[in-house]
Amino acid sequence: MNTKSIETPLEHFYGVILGGGAGTRLWPLSRELSPKQILHLFGQDSLIRQTIYRLQKLIPEDRISIVTGERLYEEIRNHLLAEYPPLKEVRFILESAPRNTAPAVALAAWQLARHDEQAILGVFPSDHFIAPDEPLLEAIARAYRVAQEGCLVTFGLKPQRPETGYGYIEQGPAIAGGMGAYQVLRFHEKPDLPTAQSFLQSGRHFWNSGIFLFQAKTLLEEVQKYLPDLIATLQTLDRYSPQEYQRFAAELFGKLKPISLDYGVLEKSEKVAVLPVEIGWKDVGSLPSLDEFHPKDAQGNVQVGHVLLEDCRNTTVYSDSRLVATIGLEDLMVIDTRDATLVCPKSQSQKVSRIVARLKEEGAQEGISQRASARPWGSFIELEKGPTFQVKHIEVLPGMRLSEQLHNHRSEHWIILSGTARISLDGSDHLLHANESIYIPMNTRHRLENPGKILVRLIEVQNGEYLGEDDIERFQDDFGR
Amino acid sequence: MNTKSIETPLEHFYGVILGGGAGTRLWPLSRELSPKQILHLFGQDSLIRQTIYRLQKLIPEDRISIVTGERLYEEIRNHLLAEYPPLKEVRFILESAPRNTAPAVALAAWQLARHDEQAILGVFPSDHFIAPDEPLLEAIARAYRVAQEGCLVTFGLKPQRPETGYGYIEQGPAIAGGMGAYQVLRFHEKPDLPTAQSFLQSGRHFWNSGIFLFQAKTLLEEVQKYLPDLIATLQTLDRYSPQEYQRFAAELFGKLKPISLDYGVLEKSEKVAVLPVEIGWKDVGSLPSLDEFHPKDAQGNVQVGHVLLEDCRNTTVYSDSRLVATIGLEDLMVIDTRDATLVCPKSQSQKVSRIVARLKEEGAQEGISQRASARPWGSFIELEKGPTFQVKHIEVLPGMRLSEQLHNHRSEHWIILSGTARISLDGSDHLLHANESIYIPMNTRHRLENPGKILVRLIEVQNGEYLGEDDIERFQDDFGR
Repeated sequence: MNTKSIETPLEHFYGVILGGGAGTRLWPLSRELSPKQILHLFGQDSLIRQTIYRLQKLIPEDRISIVTGERLYEEIRNHLLAEYPPLKEVRFILESAPRNTAPAVALAAWQLARHDEQAILGVFPSDHFIAPDEPLLEAIARAYRVAQEGCLVTFGLKPQRPETGYGYIEQGPAIAGGMGAYQVLRFHEKPDLPTAQSFLQSGRHFWNSGIFLFQAKTLLEEVQKYLPDLIATLQTLDRYSPQEYQRFAAELFGKLKPISLDYGVLEKSEKVAVLPVEIGWKDVGSLPSLDEFHPKDAQGNVQVGHVLLEDCRNTTVYSDSRLVATIGLEDLMVIDTRDATLVCPKSQSQKVSRIVARLKEEGAQEGISQRASARPWGSFIELEKGPTFQVKHIEVLPGMRLSEQLHNHRSEHWIILSGTARISLDGSDHLLHANESIYIPMNTRHRLENPGKILVRLIEVQNGEYLGEDDIERFQDDFGR
Repeated sequence: MNTKSIETPLEHFYGVILGGGAGTRLWPLSRELSPKQILHLFGQDSLIRQTIYRLQKLIPEDRISIVTGERLYEEIRNHLLAEYPPLKEVRFILESAPRNTAPAVALAAWQLARHDEQAILGVFPSDHFIAPDEPLLEAIARAYRVAQEGCLVTFGLKPQRPETGYGYIEQGPAIAGGMGAYQVLRFHEKPDLPTAQSFLQSGRHFWNSGIFLFQAKTLLEEVQKYLPDLIATLQTLDRYSPQEYQRFAAELFGKLKPISLDYGVLEKSEKVAVLPVEIGWKDVGSLPSLDEFHPKDAQGNVQVGHVLLEDCRNTTVYSDSRLVATIGLEDLMVIDTRDATLVCPKSQSQKVSRIVARLKEEGAQEGISQRASARPWGSFIELEKGPTFQVKHIEVLPGMRLSEQLHNHRSEHWIILSGTARISLDGSDHLLHANESIYIPMNTRHRLENPGKILVRLIEVQNGEYLGEDDIERFQDDFGR
């Protein structure tokens, strides 16, 4: 992370990161509670962290907001707190029900405009890969000027291929003094192949990057014009006390029609501009798209993890922990995670949503979450689960502590594997080192802390008749849970 | 198991089960130390146990011998002792080096003839599926009479299809008074398809079942004739004291040429007969052959375990513990075990041996053993392994106890999950119940016992700088280890 500011007068600029997303298209790498934006897909920072680091080069952390839903809030917040550096100042704007991007962006504009009438929002997807940062940051500075003139600025990407899966923006006349921006003649939804080929050659058609920049007030005026119900809802919400908001927002938000910002506002508004930008941009919209991030061998195979390929061609095999061997495959993907494996031709990867739907019907855990979970204090992995017991490997970061808590239905045995743990149990403190253990009886207040400089790793064996994560009474928590 | 004897005067009959085999062709279901004959492939008794139970209908357990090598001896013996009913009386004949079936069978004949000059051996593979038992038992009784006349009796199976992967036996004239047996005109190695088709129609060609029956002395005479070096080796071995045998047998055995009984003796001998038998017989020689043991859905798919198939045809998916999802596959196999997954077209399953060879080169554990291991006292599964720690789930059968032992490099924490365990530690006894724990320091004598009537399950957390299974000093062991 480089926090050196580029010298631009972005006094009223706010970063808004769209952090929703169902996490189904990259299953089993992603899950409902572990969507792609928080995954370590390429052995580096998650895409949402990369997006934040990029914006931090322009504005302080607390001018960056993530718009997401209630369910993902905990997971994304854990992700931002659990890794180094912890990102404590990023703001969250919660949609009370998922209603696509128009309500999400309007809500952000509404809330930010209340504190800064001249707020200019840059809206960024959290799941695109962009590198290097500088061309985008420079484009943001130009778009900021265009937005000050009252335009809704979209960022257009020069097409690299006749892609039929993206939306296109067709440019109109240049905007006078418009910093390289153009009026928009028309939006085109996913085109057929001949059309996509003509777009590729025209020089006037751009991929719609999903990045937008505009004054909050301009956006809200246009929403008023094209989606008046949405503004009415925001006004109603505004009159609620925080307690009422908590109680009624989901219902009100839930009544809104789900609609994208593109379809609901941008395609209709006359104030839309397109700024062509040349940035190193990659979509991460499907499992096969991940191939671009890895080297291929001479047969076109991508191999990640402990994998053995025999006579395979154009085949992708990922494994995060176990051995995967493949023989004689062509154009296939094998994605192996701790609790689930997917095997599928690359051309049919979009059908993974059917698998996720069937898992939800079954109520299967594998559709919802990973066995490994990040927490603000570290992480845990479930090693085994039986009807009356559960075994976890827990890691606590240096200087962190879990909440003071007790359980009504389970007792816990902790065996330290490395580091030094401070354990407070029923009022007394114990310092435990590797190869020492402690027993936490049911209904007993306890707290686990890493007072040291290296990771604390321990094995937890739970015994009890009910082992749900919700059997927890919290007394004090450093993370406000 | 039904131990009711069929009334036949098989006074000198001995069952010899060939228990070697590399365990590579069914990888990852089978492993070098977990070959197919001891697997629970069809949710029922292992094939070697089925073979023993079948012979127990004719002869007592201690007239059944398993011929195998040093490495597999422990695993097979554990398997026979660990499951119910424990088979303690089965004898073992150890090849000191694997040299194919001719030396293995000659060794068995040699050893059994020393105790019973009139011994008649029935030799059975341990990895074929046969049901029901009665037709084979009835054929054994007839073959016994033919063997008494000095014949080497092979069992011929009526071909079911033009199989090119098997050897065939061509029948000659009937043997007078030969109980339905014929002289053998010729052995045919794996034929090409047109030849296999003509064999299927001839009515005179049979699949070579790998089951043989003969007097020990007849066999040894024929071995003397066609493989005189083998007899010389057996004679030399015979002169050794047990201590010398232990020391020199591997070297002597290792000098023998590897050769099959068929090729080395039966194809040359003039005393060979074939007894056509009609028994429900299935080969378990390859992963696709397992399909026959499972029902298929309307699209020809076989699904075992927690698996989800979308738009698949003629595809087999096995999973022993995790979730496996497949989309749009055809004629593929996906075999998922706790530590390794194989994906492969059914037609290329024979190439799995290349994977096993590469794993051996790498020294990878997945080529050699499973994470779960049977022991005479129960079993264990490795849940996690790190450089200085290891977590196991251990199960001890009612009434069983582990050896009294100590470790020089690791200490152990035991947390009981169910049952009642008696633990002797440095001379004192402790009775532990579910949710209780005990610490076993390094260099301390300890012993774990299940004195109760239900399974003891516990989690073991090992800490130490060296975690090999061979860091064990045994003081007393119920299983002679």
